[in-house]
Amino acid sequence: MKRTHSCDKTLRSAPKDETARSAEYLIRAGYVHKEMAGVYDFLPLGLRTLENIKTIIREELNAIGCEELQLTALQRPEPWQKSDRWSDQEVDIWFKTELSSGGELGLAPTHEEPITDLMKTYIQSYKDLPVYAYQFQTKFRNELRAKSGIMRTREFLMKDLYSFSADEKSHDDFYHKVEDAYKRIYERVGLGDCTYQTFASGGIFSKFSHEFQTIIPVGEDTIYYNKDKSIVLNEEVLLPEVLDEFHITRDELESTRAAEVGNIFTLRYKYSEPLDLKFSDKDNTEKTVFMGCYGIGVSRVMGVIAEKFADEKGLIWPENIAPYKYYLVGIGENGIKTAEKLYKGHEDEIIFDDRNARPGEKFADAELLGIPYRIVVSDKTLAENKAEFTNRATGETKLIDIDKIFK
Amino acid sequence: MKRTHSCDKTLRSAPKDETARSAEYLIRAGYVHKEMAGVYDFLPLGLRTLENIKTIIREELNAIGCEELQLTALQRPEPWQKSDRWSDQEVDIWFKTELSSGGELGLAPTHEEPITDLMKTYIQSYKDLPVYAYQFQTKFRNELRAKSGIMRTREFLMKDLYSFSADEKSHDDFYHKVEDAYKRIYERVGLGDCTYQTFASGGIFSKFSHEFQTIIPVGEDTIYYNKDKSIVLNEEVLLPEVLDEFHITRDELESTRAAEVGNIFTLRYKYSEPLDLKFSDKDNTEKTVFMGCYGIGVSRVMGVIAEKFADEKGLIWPENIAPYKYYLVGIGENGIKTAEKLYKGHEDEIIFDDRNARPGEKFADAELLGIPYRIVVSDKTLAENKAEFTNRATGETKLIDIDKIFK
Repeated sequence: MKRTHSCDKTLRSAPKDETARSAEYLIRAGYVHKEMAGVYDFLPLGLRTLENIKTIIREELNAIGCEELQLTALQRPEPWQKSDRWSDQEVDIWFKTELSSGGELGLAPTHEEPITDLMKTYIQSYKDLPVYAYQFQTKFRNELRAKSGIMRTREFLMKDLYSFSADEKSHDDFYHKVEDAYKRIYERVGLGDCTYQTFASGGIFSKFSHEFQTIIPVGEDTIYYNKDKSIVLNEEVLLPEVLDEFHITRDELESTRAAEVGNIFTLRYKYSEPLDLKFSDKDNTEKTVFMGCYGIGVSRVMGVIAEKFADEKGLIWPENIAPYKYYLVGIGENGIKTAEKLYKGHEDEIIFDDRNARPGEKFADAELLGIPYRIVVSDKTLAENKAEFTNRATGETKLIDIDKIFK
Repeated sequence: MKRTHSCDKTLRSAPKDETARSAEYLIRAGYVHKEMAGVYDFLPLGLRTLENIKTIIREELNAIGCEELQLTALQRPEPWQKSDRWSDQEVDIWFKTELSSGGELGLAPTHEEPITDLMKTYIQSYKDLPVYAYQFQTKFRNELRAKSGIMRTREFLMKDLYSFSADEKSHDDFYHKVEDAYKRIYERVGLGDCTYQTFASGGIFSKFSHEFQTIIPVGEDTIYYNKDKSIVLNEEVLLPEVLDEFHITRDELESTRAAEVGNIFTLRYKYSEPLDLKFSDKDNTEKTVFMGCYGIGVSRVMGVIAEKFADEKGLIWPENIAPYKYYLVGIGENGIKTAEKLYKGHEDEIIFDDRNARPGEKFADAELLGIPYRIVVSDKTLAENKAEFTNRATGETKLIDIDKIFK
C-alpha cells in the first residue's frame, strides 16, 4: 500500500474520553474510528489486522473439523423465551427493536438459542452428530458503560463455536481439542507467553468453565495462580471448596490483573432441553443433544494485543497479525527510486511511505503504526548496496543487502 | 467436504410462505435457513457461495484502487439529521433502538452519512483526495413485506463503495472505472450475458443514475430496451423528455422483467454539503467534496443467480461461485475406494457424498445442490479406468480417464 493512495492518516490526538492506551493509539494510527462510546469503525489497516486474526482462528477451527456458517443479528423472541433469556430482567444488555409489520425483535448478543433452534432441522439421528459450527459475527450488547476502547464495546466481532454431541464422553473429547486449538490460536496471534487457561464459574449446569486470560495491567479481571502446581483460577471460583478440590490454600496463590480473551463452556442440556433438540440414538431411544460453546472476541483480542505490546512510541504488532510486514521509506532521489523498485511485487506486504514528508515524520508514523520491520534506503545505505532494517519490537537496527531484504 | 461430516442435509420441503423458486431450493439444499420472513442464516454451503461472490467483487474493486474498511451497524442520529434522513417520515425502513444509557440509535440501512462524517477526519486537503472506500457490511431495512427469498430481505450483505473526489471531472473518470469493474463482476459471477446497465432516476441532484439489471421473469422491475441503439431505460425514466434526449420513441422500446443487481450513483454534494465535508484546494480555496456511491447487494446477487439458472431439478451454480466444483459419488466397494483416493488432496473443491445411501439419492442431491460437475466412479467405469463426468448445466455426460479428471 502506498500512503499517498490510502485514506489512512495519523492523527495528533484521540477523543478525550479514551482512557485505554491501545484505543488512543489505534485511533491516532488510523486503525479504527470512534462512532460513539463502544462503537468503532474499522479502517483499512484495522480491518486487515482483524482479518489476520480471523484467518488464524479459522484455520485452527477448520483443522479440528469445524464448519463455518453465519447466523443473523435480528432475532425473534420465541427461541429466547424458551430458555428464559428474552426479558430485559433476565438479560440486561439486549438491544430491542420493532418490525414495521408488528412484533418485537432483538439484536443477538450471543447465539446459543438460534443455533440450537436451527439444528432441530439438521439433527434428528445419532448419524447427524456431532456438529461443530462456528461463525464470525457481529454481536450487539447494550452495555451501560463502554470503555477500554475496542476491548469492551457495544458492537463487536465475535467468533462463536457451538458443539452438538451425542453424549458427555464425545463432548469431552472435542472440548479438549478446542482447548488445544485455542492454545495454538493465542500462540499464533502472539499472546502465547502471557495467556493462561483458567478455571471459571460453570454456572448452574457445569462445575467449571474455562477462560483464557491474558495478563495485562489494565485487565478487568483478577486471576489467581500457582506456577509450580500449574493452577490458575478466576476470582469468582476462589471459594473454600474449590481450593480444597485443587489441594491448595489461598496463601499459595499469587494474583494479577488479566483480560479475558476467550472462553469455553460445557453447556450440557442448558439450551437443548428447553429448545427440545433431541436425537434418536442407535438403540432407538430419544436423547437430548449435549452442547458446548466456545467464544473468542476477535476485536477484543486485537485490542488486548494492541494494549499488551504498545510502548511509548505507539503500537507493536506481532508479525502474524500485523496489517503489513514492512514499512518502507526512501530518502533522497536514489533512495526513493530504489524504494519504488523494492515495493514492486511486494505491494501486499509493504506500506510504502511515498508521501512528500520529512524522514522523521515517516519514522514516527512507522513506530506509531507498529509495523514489524522498517526498511530505509538512502544514499548512505545504497553506497554499500544495503538497506537499513529496524525491528519495531526490539529497536534493533542492521544493514542488509538490498537483494536479501525479503529473505 | 464429506457429507457425513457436514451439518448440511437436503430437505423435502421449504416453508410454505416461500414463493420464489430460488428460496425453496436454497432452503431445501441447505444453503440458507429461514429465521423469519426476510431474515436468513447462511449455512456452510451458502456462506461459501457468498464468499466466492465477495472475493470476485473485492478483486475487481481493489484492482481499480479501492480500499476496504468496515463501518458499524449502530448509528447515532446526528449525521442523519443533518441530511434529513433520520426521521421515520423521511426514511421509512429504519430499525431504531435505544441505548440503555439513554439516547436513540438506528441500524444502518446504508452508510452515506457515517462515511461522509468519518471522512471529515481524513480529508482536509486536495492531497487527501481521491478516496475510494468500500465495505461488505450487513444492512438492516425494516421492510413492511419481505419476499423473494434472499433477493429482498430485512438483513442482508451489501457491498457499498463511496468515492470522494476533488471535482466532477475526476469523479467521472472513476465512475467509468466502476462501470467497467461492475461489468467484469457480473461477467465473472455468471450474469454477464443477461445483465444490462440501465439509465435510472438520478434523484434531484443528478440527471441519471445507473442500475445493473438482470433479466429474469420474477424480477421486480420492468426495463425498456432497444438493442440496435443499445439503450436500456428503467421504467421510472420513461418520460417524454428522456425519450427525446435519447432520440427514441416509446414504440421502439421492448420491455422485460428484470431484477436490480447493482447501482451506481453520482451523489455530487448531496451528503458532503449538509455534513460539511470540505477540502482546501491547490489555490487555497475551500471546496466541497464531490461524492459517488456504488452498491451491490451481495446476498441478493446470490439469490438472483440461484433464481436465474435453476431448473426443475434444483440449483445450477456458475463454476466461479459454486461452493464446490465437484460432487463425487463412488458406487460399489471399488468405486468408493477410488473416490476416497480422488478426494484426497482436493478436499476444498469436492463434496464427497460418502453417505450410506442409494446412488439415486446422491444423484438427486448433486442436482438439487447445483454443483457444476458430478463425478461417478463405479466398477463399470473403472473397468476402463475412467470416471463418469456430468455437467450440471448442460446434462452432458462423458467418460474421462481417472488421472485426467482434475485437468
